[in-house]
Amino acid sequence: MFKAKVKAEVLKTILDAVSTLVDEAKIQVTPEGISLKAVDPAHVAMVELSMGKKAFAEYKATDMDMGVDLDKLKDILKLAGSSDLIEMEYKEDQHRLVFKIGHITRRMALVDTANMGDPKVPNLNLPNQVTILANELQQGIKASEAVSDHIALVAEGKVFELVADGDTDQVHLRLEADNLVKIQAPDKSRSLFSLDYFANMSKVAKATDSITLHLGTDYPVKFEFDIADGAGHIVYLLAPRIESE
Amino acid sequence: MFKAKVKAEVLKTILDAVSTLVDEAKIQVTPEGISLKAVDPAHVAMVELSMGKKAFAEYKATDMDMGVDLDKLKDILKLAGSSDLIEMEYKEDQHRLVFKIGHITRRMALVDTANMGDPKVPNLNLPNQVTILANELQQGIKASEAVSDHIALVAEGKVFELVADGDTDQVHLRLEADNLVKIQAPDKSRSLFSLDYFANMSKVAKATDSITLHLGTDYPVKFEFDIADGAGHIVYLLAPRIESE
Amino acid sequence: MFKAKVKAEVLKTILDAVSTLVDEAKIQVTPEGISLKAVDPAHVAMVELSMGKKAFAEYKATDMDMGVDLDKLKDILKLAGSSDLIEMEYKEDQHRLVFKIGHITRRMALVDTANMGDPKVPNLNLPNQVTILANELQQGIKASEAVSDHIALVAEGKVFELVADGDTDQVHLRLEADNLVKIQAPDKSRSLFSLDYFANMSKVAKATDSITLHLGTDYPVKFEFDIADGAGHIVYLLAPRIESE
Repeated sequence: MFKAKVKAEVLKTILDAVSTLVDEAKIQVTPEGISLKAVDPAHVAMVELSMGKKAFAEYKATDMDMGVDLDKLKDILKLAGSSDLIEMEYKEDQHRLVFKIGHITRRMALVDTANMGDPKVPNLNLPNQVTILANELQQGIKASEAVSDHIALVAEGKVFELVADGDTDQVHLRLEADNLVKIQAPDKSRSLFSLDYFANMSKVAKATDSITLHLGTDYPVKFEFDIADGAGHIVYLLAPRIESE
Repeated sequence: MFKAKVKAEVLKTILDAVSTLVDEAKIQVTPEGISLKAVDPAHVAMVELSMGKKAFAEYKATDMDMGVDLDKLKDILKLAGSSDLIEMEYKEDQHRLVFKIGHITRRMALVDTANMGDPKVPNLNLPNQVTILANELQQGIKASEAVSDHIALVAEGKVFELVADGDTDQVHLRLEADNLVKIQAPDKSRSLFSLDYFANMSKVAKATDSITLHLGTDYPVKFEFDIADGAGHIVYLLAPRIESE
Repeated sequence: MFKAKVKAEVLKTILDAVSTLVDEAKIQVTPEGISLKAVDPAHVAMVELSMGKKAFAEYKATDMDMGVDLDKLKDILKLAGSSDLIEMEYKEDQHRLVFKIGHITRRMALVDTANMGDPKVPNLNLPNQVTILANELQQGIKASEAVSDHIALVAEGKVFELVADGDTDQVHLRLEADNLVKIQAPDKSRSLFSLDYFANMSKVAKATDSITLHLGTDYPVKFEFDIADGAGHIVYLLAPRIESE
């Protein structure tokens, strides 16, 4: 069973975080909260999201899965203001999730989860860590989009750099320890990423959030941040692009 | 003759109310105010609008008709802020309506009304009446648009319901007397309507307006509300859809 | 050499003023400021812009030219709020202009100016002058766009008129000396202009700017206004359309 009451903005954060990679998601429900893992169709990126029961105004659940069509969820969230409370209840006999928003009852059919795998989170050894304000990263990405479709993330000592090299133009975001929340980069690391994926993922964070990037050389980037005032957490993994000569 | 001065927002309400059904309208002018009746090309919906002289800052007129191209009126209203005063005067020799907005004079040719009929308002016996806040109705419509292209309106005793049934999903707005301005539904009524028409019509009301629905079973819905602080009134009629098995 | 620091909004005014006519521009740099002249591809309109060093927070330059791709400049300006300071420096060895916005360094390749001519500003004898608030002019243009693709500008004695004649409809903006900043029109003048060009040019001025129009009969209009709090100036020339019978 699953019965909960939550502010619309909490569901919206989940929706935004996951819909950048997939159209449908398998949400795992436990007595302690909900979580999900999803891999995009091209197998380039992965999201791992957890939202503890503390993020909910009311929460009561046993272990179960729910397959959710994210486009439908998006339509439903349009019915509520960001601080409006939404009631949700799983109706097992109808295999539906029932939402109550104001005086409206919205019954949403769930999606079969039989064909949704359980992505394995790879065990990565990423030596460098950089914690950065989301808006600095987002600004660097915005500048890069005008010149290239990929970016390099570089960390070494007390310096983090984001570099986008176009045919004639270049973008260079350089942040030293003073302008970062934290940096630990004993060895130099440098990896290249698809700007498109990276841009969509970093947009999920609010401008004032701290994002922690875990970096290696020619290795995936793992980047994570808290959501819902710390009651939830998002981890993204993005595969590197191979640098051409 | 027709000479008047009016806030732009009053003309805008008339425009919005009528342009959802037709492109041109015959406005009937009398010494007491203006009115119009229009039926959409598919003969599914009708609007009846009246705007008393009290809605105007200045008003002087004799009995006459004016055929108005609503797209032109829309362009003209873009030149004024909602509380700006617009002067209008009918020039018989030129068969034009002349607008003055600030220092701009805009002469608009009128449309020939010879081919515009005078729709007969059918005499309907609709037993049930429900008065509802426009924003409750608009919210129910918005939710319904995601699941179906038609809705059922049901009234019985102290309960009014709006139901949209999709293939797998459902929307259900249920309001009891406490959440309605008024309900009088001695017999159960239920009719099905095209969501598209109903949505456009209900958008004309402001969120805080009270809309009165007159309902029967497999009968048209008549719904009406005041405009311009009670100086005007709109009545819509919408034919039912026949419920398929 | 060229090294300067300037509020983003100053660069944006330059961009808006010039990009309405051309995609690339040759900026002439001197120790006293920057300037440019450009003619649109159809040779119907010309812009002459100057921006003195006083418009810059810091400014240091020797005589030189820079060919700028205006689409790139537009992308770069999106990275800054209107009051953010942007640093610019010309790097001769790379033939690039380097922008610094916050922690971002953006290197922009310059365009070859060899094929960009130096338009000659024609010497015109325009007897009448009308100084008008930009928003009055913009309002008249907006009204005219609904009825025609050209407008007549007429000045005579104490009256300035903008007239747009459609097939059935007409727009007439009439301003007497009281509603103008200034008018000097010893002889009657009347010329016809393409509304499209005139609209785009007049949008560059802020609503509260004073625009001075220099007018003759069947002659180009020259219109000019200050920018950057008087530290810069824009002059547009627009060729007349020949009035058909």
